[in-house]
Parts: sequence; structure tokens; C-alpha cells
Amino acid sequence: MADNHNNLSLWRDATLFDGERLLEGLYAVVTRDTRIDSIYPMASLPADIENHARLIHQGGVITPGLIDCHTHLVFAGSRADEFEQRLEGASYAEIARQGGGILSTVRATRQASEQTLYEASLPRIQALIQDGVTCVEIKSGYGLTLADELKMLRVARRIGRELPVRVTTTLLAAHALPPEYAQDADGYIDLICREIIPAAATEQLADAVDVFCEGIGFSVAQCERVFQAAQAAGIPVKAHAEQLSNLGGSALAARYQALSADHIEWLDEAGIQAMAAAGTVATLLPGAFYTLRDTQVPPIELLRQYQVPMALATDANPGTSPIFQLSLMLNMACTLFRLTPTEALQGVTRHAAKALGMADQIGLLAPGYAADFCVWDIHSPAELAYAIQPGRLKQRVFNGEVSQ
Amino acid sequence: MADNHNNLSLWRDATLFDGERLLEGLYAVVTRDTRIDSIYPMASLPADIENHARLIHQGGVITPGLIDCHTHLVFAGSRADEFEQRLEGASYAEIARQGGGILSTVRATRQASEQTLYEASLPRIQALIQDGVTCVEIKSGYGLTLADELKMLRVARRIGRELPVRVTTTLLAAHALPPEYAQDADGYIDLICREIIPAAATEQLADAVDVFCEGIGFSVAQCERVFQAAQAAGIPVKAHAEQLSNLGGSALAARYQALSADHIEWLDEAGIQAMAAAGTVATLLPGAFYTLRDTQVPPIELLRQYQVPMALATDANPGTSPIFQLSLMLNMACTLFRLTPTEALQGVTRHAAKALGMADQIGLLAPGYAADFCVWDIHSPAELAYAIQPGRLKQRVFNGEVSQ
Ligand SMILES: [Zn+2]
Ligand SMILES: [Zn+2]
Repeated sequence: MADNHNNLSLWRDATLFDGERLLEGLYAVVTRDTRIDSIYPMASLPADIENHARLIHQGGVITPGLIDCHTHLVFAGSRADEFEQRLEGASYAEIARQGGGILSTVRATRQASEQTLYEASLPRIQALIQDGVTCVEIKSGYGLTLADELKMLRVARRIGRELPVRVTTTLLAAHALPPEYAQDADGYIDLICREIIPAAATEQLADAVDVFCEGIGFSVAQCERVFQAAQAAGIPVKAHAEQLSNLGGSALAARYQALSADHIEWLDEAGIQAMAAAGTVATLLPGAFYTLRDTQVPPIELLRQYQVPMALATDANPGTSPIFQLSLMLNMACTLFRLTPTEALQGVTRHAAKALGMADQIGLLAPGYAADFCVWDIHSPAELAYAIQPGRLKQRVFNGEVSQ
Repeated sequence: MADNHNNLSLWRDATLFDGERLLEGLYAVVTRDTRIDSIYPMASLPADIENHARLIHQGGVITPGLIDCHTHLVFAGSRADEFEQRLEGASYAEIARQGGGILSTVRATRQASEQTLYEASLPRIQALIQDGVTCVEIKSGYGLTLADELKMLRVARRIGRELPVRVTTTLLAAHALPPEYAQDADGYIDLICREIIPAAATEQLADAVDVFCEGIGFSVAQCERVFQAAQAAGIPVKAHAEQLSNLGGSALAARYQALSADHIEWLDEAGIQAMAAAGTVATLLPGAFYTLRDTQVPPIELLRQYQVPMALATDANPGTSPIFQLSLMLNMACTLFRLTPTEALQGVTRHAAKALGMADQIGLLAPGYAADFCVWDIHSPAELAYAIQPGRLKQRVFNGEVSQ
């Protein structure tokens, strides 16, 4: 018996938000190697575990490791100059003339070597790790050629290999129209469907395929072709949809059993019904809403009524959400979208895991789940959403190891 | 010569934002003990300094240490529950019935010992320090009795003695009406003028006196009485003014040569003219604007026209701005108020120092100024306002010593 328990590690006397709710009373979390072995109310903690498991920490609030289920954090170049010029009075047209906007990021990303791109991305992923993130989704979408999209996805994979963080990759070739296809969006969709998706599938570089379904992005018909190609390659889909207008991208995504529809400020009830029926998660991105000074709040009350799970992410990207702090999204979701603290916390744990198709592995404190969790120096989980206060992360556990 | 230079420390090859502007080219910052000794373009760095000064750091962007010139970070209790209840649908009236709101903070602060209050405040000030703050203003205002106001100010002084941060204290007894004076605001103003201000002056606990001039706070006439008492005690004044309505508090403050008028969303041109004439700084508090989902943006363009210096602060407090991250205010000022990155950076350095009456000591990289500065792992100062990305502070120098 004792031998057996020597493999166990113990966090005790902790308040638990398990990914779904705050548990009453104090708990012990017991891990074995990379997984959660068991969870006990303190009063029921077996004496042999109490006596023989390795005690790692006592007290605090424990949540699942935070999951940022929507980011574009691999890119090269900086848009700080453009941000400054706009605030100093330059018009969008002037900035475009100077080569600004998303295409400036595309240019810099194409020019960057895989190594350069990796190094440029490191401080951003490290900011998330220090914030308590243990799993992050990373999209391509600034390469827009076969080689450059795959290069971005390889960098994302390398981040997952070299740093203490789980990475899921998403191919977002249908992010913007590359200059080479300026008059031929359908031709670019052909390239995506016939070459980029199959190649990403062969190299197992894409855990999902995403599209930007919008007037300034791609049409519903074009997005559907991408979804069909993804389906043929056996890759699940998701969509940027209903951010600036209501085109029906979310309902389309739901028809293809999408993992999530993201942004969804303009989502209507029909779209919500389709998502509810398909089990598609609604991913809210308050950082983009804030940065764009948007006023169209997503239909939170209807999402609640139809019990569509709401995930929450940074949308970390150089243009519309240069934000690398997932904990801030907890406050922004409550302040700007009127989520409750519990909903916000579910959004970066249990529901974010659902949005990545990983709800059986991460995002929940339960036996058999990955031992990815955070110990916070606070009294109640709601404090994480209430105060914007870095420095409260006491311990970050990834795959059973204290990595911070 | 060499002997002399052994007392010098050297930061070289740095990009400088000196508190007013970005300097062209690369610079060396040389400190002696607690002060900045000299600043040289790299090409003019004297060889004897280059050879004999102690090299501390090479590269990066150097700014003055950040100055948070408006906080209420000393308090007891938590309002996270209230935040949660409101988002779960409780009305303001229900929360007030349960003893919520500012008076719950007053109750908890009165009950707390000086030691408890100090310990409760530590994580908040530490969050600011880790964010690059080297000087912070701390207000009283949750005691609302002679003893409890002085207790708060003593805690603020103790923070300045025990941690590597400069603290300036502000007596804000005129923050809210204590329950004991519920029907007698003038009686409470009497107490402030006759007892609290003189006692704070005797014990040298208040570097400034502040008021909350607002319909839900104190009238212009009541605030003027407080200013007169402060003037009699030889203490400079400032005001919370024009946050929710335009009462003329800023113009009143300017008549008393106030250091700053703060919030000022509803400030009119007459008020701005008065502030410009008096040299009163406009302190912008985008965190409160954001938290309250305010839509009335301060009159930035008029403040520019009249060349009123704009400072920027967290307003860190448990109710309307539970935000302990000054760097976030750089982004919020640009995003929500359309300040330029340069204006935002001036707001937390040079102009914040002016708002504290310390413009000849801190907030500027210049010979004779305190050696309080930050070295950032970025390429251009604008990046600090552009991206919300903790973890870019490479080195924080306080009084000439690397304290982080
Ligand atoms: Zn996105
Ligand atoms: Zn205030």
C-alpha cells in the first residue's frame, strides 16, 4: 500500500472550482504521474494517502489549468507602429497605402524563417503560461500559401513540444485573401481545398480547420467548400462567424458539426438553435470586442436559454486583439458581456476544452483527467473575474509537474 | 578619475522614452547611488565611464519608473461577492440591503487592525511593483473617522518604508458620508476640517488632501471648506471631479491651485481653462470608465488645445476599478480615450509626477532625477500601449538598485 502511495502527489485543504462549479468545503487533489488520480473532500481523505503521498501544497483555490481556445499568436512583425499612427490621426487608407493592416503581418510572416517565427512567438506564449494557461489553440492564417501555412503550424507544434503547455493547431488558410489571388477568391479556396488541407492532413499538422466567414472574409458558399475538404480529410471544423454581420456562418458551421463558432456578436436565434442541436460551442472574444470598440454584445441570454456552452478566449492577434493575458478576459467577459464569474471560469476551463474537442482530457478536475491545474492565492474563484490583478498564480501544474 | 567612476552604474545601448518623448538613437544611462548622474547618446559616452562604470544592462527600451498617481489600494474586505451577485441578477437595492457597496469596505476597514490592513494591501502593491511601478499615490477614504483615516495613512506610509516603492499619501476623508453622519454632511465636513486635517498635518501623514465632488459625494461648497482647511494646514489639494456630472469641481480645485482634477469625463471648457491657468493636471482613469461601462469620454481634444498635462492612473479600488495593473491603463487610454501611445506614456511618467507635485524628482530620465526606471524587453515604447502582454519588464530599478 505505502509503496503505491509513494507515487502520489497531494494538494490539500484547497477550495475547488472544478471547471463547472465551486465545490463546497475544502478538498484534496491527488495526482499520479501526469493525471489526476482522485479528489476527496478533506474529511474523507484516506489516511494512507494523507500519510504517504508527497505533499505539494496546502490551501488556496484550485482551478483547472486555463485553456485559451482561440489565438493567432504565431506571427512575425509588429503592428505597434500602425496602432500609433492611427491614434496620431492617420486614416485607414493612409495606413493601407503604407502597407499596413493584416497584409503587413502576412508579409513579415512569409519572410520569417521557422526559427525566427518561433522566437518571435515565445514571449507571447510565455505571457500566457505565466498567466496560468496550460493549453492553447494556435491558428495559422498569416502565411496564405501552402508552404507558409504549414510553416506556421510547425512552429505551433514546436511550441507544444518545447514548452510546458499543450498546443492544439488550427489551419486557418481561409483567413484573408492573399494578394496573389486579389481578384480570385474562388481560386484561393481551390488552393486551400485541393492542396493546403490535404498536405496539412498528411503531415498531421492541423487538429482543426477554421474559416473567416464575413463580408470582408469569405462567403458562406466558400466556407462550405473548405468544410467539405476538411471533412474529407477527417479534420473537425470551426468558424469565425457573425462578428461584423449575420451571414449564417454559425449555422453552416453547425451543419458540419463544428467544434465552435467564434465571435458571434450578430448571431441570431436560428443560428443558436443550430449550434445547440449540433453541440457547437459559442466562443466569446471580448478582447476583440474591446479593441474594436464594438457595441454589439453577443446574444448571451439566448445562448443561456438554449444551453449552448460559452467558451472564452483572447483571440490574441496583432491587429484586433493584441492581448496575451487570458485572465483579463474573465473580467472583460463579466464587465462587457455580463457573464457571471462562474460562466467566465467555465469559459476558460470546461467549455474551452469542449471547444477544442478535448472535454474528456482537460478542463475538469476529475479522476483520469490530465493533471493540469492552477493554485491561486485567493479566497474565492470569483475573485479571478472580479479583480484585474496579476501575481495571484501561486502554482501552475502541467502534466502533474509544478512548472511555475 | 577611475575611482570616481567606480561609483557609477551603466545601462547602455538602450532606446529611451525619457518621460516626454522617444529619443532618437541609442543611449547610455549612468547612475550614481540613488540618482541619475548623466545620459549620453552612445556615440558620446566618455571612454572612462565606458571602461570603469559597472555595466548593469545592455539594450532594451528604458522608461522612467511607472507612477500610479491615483489609487485607493489600502482597504480591507472583498467585494468579489457583490460583483458576482450583481452579475447573477441582484439589484443595487438588494446588495445595499445586504450591506454591500462602499460602506461594506468602510466597515471592514474600520474593523481591521493596522497590521491586518497592511497585509491585505501587500498583494495589491506587489502587483503594481511587478508591473513596473516605482511610485504610487495611496488615498485614505474608507475609514471616515479620525482614527481610521489616520490608520489608513499610516499603512500607506509603512508600505513606502518597507517595500521598494515611493509612496505619496492623500487624505480623502471627504470620500463618502459615514453612516454616523447620514443626515449631517456639513457636520462631517466640520469633523474633517477641524479634526482630521489638522491631525493628519501634525503627524505629517498626508501629502495631499482630496475630495469627492459629486452629487453622490460632496457639494462644491463643502469641498471648498475642505480645501480651505487643507490650505490652512499647508497641504496641497486635488479633487475627484466631473465624473458623473459637471458640478464645477475642477474649476474650484484650480482656484485652490490643485495638483490635479481626476476623472473629469464631464469637464467643460471653462473648467479646462481654469485648470490650464492654475497648472492643474488632468488625471484620466480609464479603468473606472471601463468598469462602469461609462460612455462619456473625457474632453481629450480640448485638454490638448489648452495644453493641460494628462496623467493616467489605475484608480485601484474595490468598487469601481478593481484593477491593479497600471500597464493596462496605457492600452485602455489609447483604446477607450484615443490618447496616443506617447500621451499615454507621459501620463504614467512625467505627467503623473506633475500630478503628485514631484515633477522635479521623478518621472523623467534626466541628471539629478531619482534613478527609478524600467528596462523593457521590447523594440519601441509604443509597444507598451499597443499590446496587453505582461512579462516584458526586464528590469525595474528603484533608487538606483535593481529591485526586480
Ligand atoms: Zn480570431
Ligand atoms: Zn478615485
